[in-house]
Amino acid sequence: MDQKRTAILVVLDGLGDRPVIELGGLTPLQAAKTPNLDQLAAEGQTGLMYVISPGVTPGSDVAHLFLFGYDPLTHYPGRGALEVLGTELPFKPGDIGFRANFATVDSDLTVTDRRAGRNITPEEGRILQKAIDGLVIDGIKVHFTHTVQHRGALVLEGNGLSDKITSVDPRETGLKILESKPLEPKAKKTAKVVNKLVQIAHERLRDLEVNKKREKKGLLPANALLLRGPGQLDVVKTLKDLWGVKSAVIAGGALYIGTAKYVGMEHVPVEGQTGTIDTNFDNIAEKAIECVDSGYDFIFVHIKATDNASHDQDAKKKVLAIERSDAMIGKIVDALHERVVLIVTADHSTPIAVGEHTCDPVPVLLWSSFIRADSVQAFSELDAAKGALHNFRGLSLLPLMFGYAGLLEKVGA
Amino acid sequence: MDQKRTAILVVLDGLGDRPVIELGGLTPLQAAKTPNLDQLAAEGQTGLMYVISPGVTPGSDVAHLFLFGYDPLTHYPGRGALEVLGTELPFKPGDIGFRANFATVDSDLTVTDRRAGRNITPEEGRILQKAIDGLVIDGIKVHFTHTVQHRGALVLEGNGLSDKITSVDPRETGLKILESKPLEPKAKKTAKVVNKLVQIAHERLRDLEVNKKREKKGLLPANALLLRGPGQLDVVKTLKDLWGVKSAVIAGGALYIGTAKYVGMEHVPVEGQTGTIDTNFDNIAEKAIECVDSGYDFIFVHIKATDNASHDQDAKKKVLAIERSDAMIGKIVDALHERVVLIVTADHSTPIAVGEHTCDPVPVLLWSSFIRADSVQAFSELDAAKGALHNFRGLSLLPLMFGYAGLLEKVGA
Repeated sequence: MDQKRTAILVVLDGLGDRPVIELGGLTPLQAAKTPNLDQLAAEGQTGLMYVISPGVTPGSDVAHLFLFGYDPLTHYPGRGALEVLGTELPFKPGDIGFRANFATVDSDLTVTDRRAGRNITPEEGRILQKAIDGLVIDGIKVHFTHTVQHRGALVLEGNGLSDKITSVDPRETGLKILESKPLEPKAKKTAKVVNKLVQIAHERLRDLEVNKKREKKGLLPANALLLRGPGQLDVVKTLKDLWGVKSAVIAGGALYIGTAKYVGMEHVPVEGQTGTIDTNFDNIAEKAIECVDSGYDFIFVHIKATDNASHDQDAKKKVLAIERSDAMIGKIVDALHERVVLIVTADHSTPIAVGEHTCDPVPVLLWSSFIRADSVQAFSELDAAKGALHNFRGLSLLPLMFGYAGLLEKVGA
Repeated sequence: MDQKRTAILVVLDGLGDRPVIELGGLTPLQAAKTPNLDQLAAEGQTGLMYVISPGVTPGSDVAHLFLFGYDPLTHYPGRGALEVLGTELPFKPGDIGFRANFATVDSDLTVTDRRAGRNITPEEGRILQKAIDGLVIDGIKVHFTHTVQHRGALVLEGNGLSDKITSVDPRETGLKILESKPLEPKAKKTAKVVNKLVQIAHERLRDLEVNKKREKKGLLPANALLLRGPGQLDVVKTLKDLWGVKSAVIAGGALYIGTAKYVGMEHVPVEGQTGTIDTNFDNIAEKAIECVDSGYDFIFVHIKATDNASHDQDAKKKVLAIERSDAMIGKIVDALHERVVLIVTADHSTPIAVGEHTCDPVPVLLWSSFIRADSVQAFSELDAAKGALHNFRGLSLLPLMFGYAGLLEKVGA
């Protein structure tokens, strides 16, 4: 076995893409100037990964569980629970966690923008949050926190709750907020509370001064709350239990922090990490280096900017996000070199031309100072198709990385 | 997820091959002029598929079940049942279905040709059929239909039947037709009926005028019936149940129609589709296009000519069958382009040099207008070894195709 090194997994969210006309038929990863990734590809191995399995399009939560070596068919608490875990909200078994969006609605609750313009500032978020957090409805306590942009997380705390209810989110603009319905008899109370909460949230939010100010500035008011992905906390064996590793998550988005905490990673906050293109890439690199120094065996670094640009179908912004990530990765490797095994990959493809997750396999780069190089000289979806890792499934990623990092026991004598 | 497109699966039966001396060391797929397949390979992705798993040689029925996403270890009614399903014969649970061959035997039932010269015309088939169909033996009713060439399908209808009997087919010339034996006590009656049927069929067939005419023309008489692959109808979840897709089969051979109907495809007949080299490739292309227009999500097109030539060890005929298939595929793609996700592959390899199925993986071509191209520029077994799909197993084919066709739900949020 190899000597122990720190395994670093960098996930550039939604990185995988297809040829983009605006980029002269190149993918954003091909079009971006990525001297560091290209050098690592030349020195390392590449391949293509089906995060779940061929043809299956992964959601972000499920995708990350696969990357962490968990099969969500057996371990899946629901996205809301994972999102809540990524915040400081209190959350205990029996509570129901939701992901929540600020949205813009008409007076009859018809949704006109599911993300309230996607431009809520942290300051506005703090004010909006106060209108919801602490509500008590039919004896059920509501905990709510704003996270990033239009996003937040919400917990219902109390007795007799169930996550088996239908969603209130119509998923399209021009439709009214839906009535939540119970999917099992004991979920009646939860559905009722959720429906009341939607109504109360609208009444409280619409009258806030902050929304009037937004409207004056020509911005959409954040006058409704959409709740999605209800889930309950369950407990799984942690990465420490399973592999004996001490692990850390460096991420901006609540979902990624939450999913990582779910499998036992410690959240290491980084100043200026926002989960957007303006996140502080330098600080992320420095924190990753610091984590290696402080003895973590496994560090998961999540960059969201690539996926945001993909959903916005903004090719140039995706290229920029990749180039900034490249610099960040270069900084990490320069500082640590012999001390790490590095994987750079994605949780799913989000092609610019589609603006949604697709089933295309994602490129994977595996690098360590000792690894035998394949013939691939650059990091891209198309080059990776010729790499030594060929095709493999997401569940193999963690063992592959841990094996080279000397973190797995020899099997047999 | 991608927008919904129609998934078209073209199976060129027995396409996979090995270098053929007569073709200057090329495989038939390399030797054939295939401008359409080569262009699609250049624009799409290729790879090699182990239809069952590495080293395993697939039979045609099992191979197709894997291609349709079914594992015949859990779903396999027996080839006879699938063959019967591909005909208009009545077939209900409790009945026993067989595939049947007209053969040539001596007076002591020694087989001299297992396929009666492989040249029975449809007209002869209709006359031969009448000698068997409608027989009643020990209270068991016999339904029989001729299908193509020497092939047919047979159903035993009545109480107390079992498919657990040994075969009467000696599988070699120079051997006598075997006595069928029960493999379980309650199969005694079935074995007895089958043995009587073999005898009666011989007596009735040998005296037919049509056989005397064949002998006068120097052709072998179709004076015996070989029964194989007994099976009973069972019911599986259809493709509609499993994936929510509306699917159609365009095929000439009963087995392929039957296997497709078993998993819930609708059979769409094509004028002039014969399952031979003389099948009407143009009409097949037109019908496939028509099926896309009429709203099918998934269309399975089966071409048998490639496999017939392989079993006959006729390299030139296999090249011709491939070239005609290439033109057919070109016609389909030209008409449909952005509306489809296309896969062209085989159910197994049948190398010219062997004349039987082998375990060699088969080439796969995946094309859609949006897919990222790999570096492969032509469609062949050897080029496909360098493609982005690398190696995969048959069970992954359907999800892969359905994923790109936007027919699968995203997993997770």
